[in-house]
Amino acid sequence: MTASFSERVLAGDPRAIARAISLLEDEAPAGADLIRAIFPRTGRAYLIGITGPPGAGKSTLVDRLAAEIRRRGQTIGIIAVDPTSPYSGGAILGDRLRMQTHAGDPGVFIRSMATRGHLGGLAHATGDVALVLDAAGLDVIVIETVGVGQDEVDIVRTADVSVVTLVPGTGDEVQALKAGIMEIADIFVVNKADREGADRTMSSVRSTLSLQSYGPDDWRPPIVKTEATSGAGVPELLEAIAAFRAYAEKTQNIRRRERSEFRLRELVSHRFMDHLETRVLAPGELSQLVERIAAREVDPYTATGELLTRALKAEN
Amino acid sequence: MTASFSERVLAGDPRAIARAISLLEDEAPAGADLIRAIFPRTGRAYLIGITGPPGAGKSTLVDRLAAEIRRRGQTIGIIAVDPTSPYSGGAILGDRLRMQTHAGDPGVFIRSMATRGHLGGLAHATGDVALVLDAAGLDVIVIETVGVGQDEVDIVRTADVSVVTLVPGTGDEVQALKAGIMEIADIFVVNKADREGADRTMSSVRSTLSLQSYGPDDWRPPIVKTEATSGAGVPELLEAIAAFRAYAEKTQNIRRRERSEFRLRELVSHRFMDHLETRVLAPGELSQLVERIAAREVDPYTATGELLTRALKAEN
Repeated sequence: MTASFSERVLAGDPRAIARAISLLEDEAPAGADLIRAIFPRTGRAYLIGITGPPGAGKSTLVDRLAAEIRRRGQTIGIIAVDPTSPYSGGAILGDRLRMQTHAGDPGVFIRSMATRGHLGGLAHATGDVALVLDAAGLDVIVIETVGVGQDEVDIVRTADVSVVTLVPGTGDEVQALKAGIMEIADIFVVNKADREGADRTMSSVRSTLSLQSYGPDDWRPPIVKTEATSGAGVPELLEAIAAFRAYAEKTQNIRRRERSEFRLRELVSHRFMDHLETRVLAPGELSQLVERIAAREVDPYTATGELLTRALKAEN
Repeated sequence: MTASFSERVLAGDPRAIARAISLLEDEAPAGADLIRAIFPRTGRAYLIGITGPPGAGKSTLVDRLAAEIRRRGQTIGIIAVDPTSPYSGGAILGDRLRMQTHAGDPGVFIRSMATRGHLGGLAHATGDVALVLDAAGLDVIVIETVGVGQDEVDIVRTADVSVVTLVPGTGDEVQALKAGIMEIADIFVVNKADREGADRTMSSVRSTLSLQSYGPDDWRPPIVKTEATSGAGVPELLEAIAAFRAYAEKTQNIRRRERSEFRLRELVSHRFMDHLETRVLAPGELSQLVERIAAREVDPYTATGELLTRALKAEN
């Protein structure tokens, strides 16, 4: 099964890709098998992470970006992640509306993803989905996400370039909710730049950036004005992305290697905990142990030592 | 050694406490031994987490809070954490200046902590240091931290109540950099409330909070105005903390149990990775594996599987 399935993914078959993404979202073992099979064919696509508050017009902006990328002869995959939404998959209205813009164009693949209740799982799954689209031969992959939490930071960190989208006139509070993510921005976009307050938002971002100290060779995040509805500024955004890509060419491999190491450590920890809970401990045993720690009957270090001893000897 | 050392910590001997904290900062094995010995005597202190941007006047506020808590006949431990500073320990000027305010008062213990370069390590160490002060019999422990990153969020999450300090007139950008932490606030403080712009800051926080949806039984974070230099508002802040403590009495044990579980999982993962790297793998072997992943010679899932197989069989 996997052989022909992975071949269909590698050939860019949209149905196979959609099925692959569902497997990864569900953390199904077949998903890991697929990644194993396609991994040698990954590493070619350029990953763009785009985040911003709700209402910043990210979807429209990404659609415009997709159109511009297509116009330049490249193919594009879009992963729209909403960590706050329990809905996902191709079934939601937004997906279908967005698909229509690029209907019949096999050079555009769009997919929504949402959390399935497993903390941190979404970021892992997003990274693996990006690998699938990469292996499927898409030139550019956009990971679009909403919000400000650690999840979004982790998701955006899987990208080669991080774009933070702001919007004028939504009030300080929304900007503020967004701002935890400012540190990870390689490029800022002020969308809906025709709105009142656009200049104030520009200068607010500028003054935030002026608080940073940059060395002579450091990248200084540019601020690009866009009007996603008309498409104004979208070519400039692509230029800024190209400039960052050229700037970061030397460091990109370091960044990707750091990501590989982070991912490997995370996967090892996750699989070990999983092994511990499902193969070593009886059901409910971990929560009993937590109760005993809470009741001060055992301390966390002793509990950890006992768990590790049992896990490491369980294979005998 | 440990027996009499831990007895001195339990008796509240400031030198023993200071030494204990150094051991925990260094992640020395003797630190884990100490936690094992004192753990049964922990769980009594109330933990207050206070965070805010640089210049919000947190130190002065915490000093005033300490004085008020002492006036009410309770003892207090203060852990001042600066994740961005490489300096720590009792040697820094700030500590000595702050100590003078409470000089000769054995009911106040103050200690600065800073990162020692180990990512995430500071949050672990802070939790363990709080256990030491708790076991030493201090009634209230204040964990004071600067900034907005994930480290601060983790640190503040170790507390029973989280207080976020803001200050008027520092401009949107500083507020903004702070704001990622807003979601975890149980209480807001607008310090330097005599400054121009205090009302604007109050209404900005209020409008941020108005974006949240609360159920009828949910806690709505109050906003307390303080002037740390004069001490105005400090009793009101203590009342707000007492009100939250009373509100959260039923849920506090759940919160502490969740923390215990989080801490246990983290400790188990950490110790397992440590075991893997120091006992199973040869030096440099992990980074060679990362290189092979980056070069697409092996995929992360296969690499993880091999690492786990080796780790789990290494004890035979």
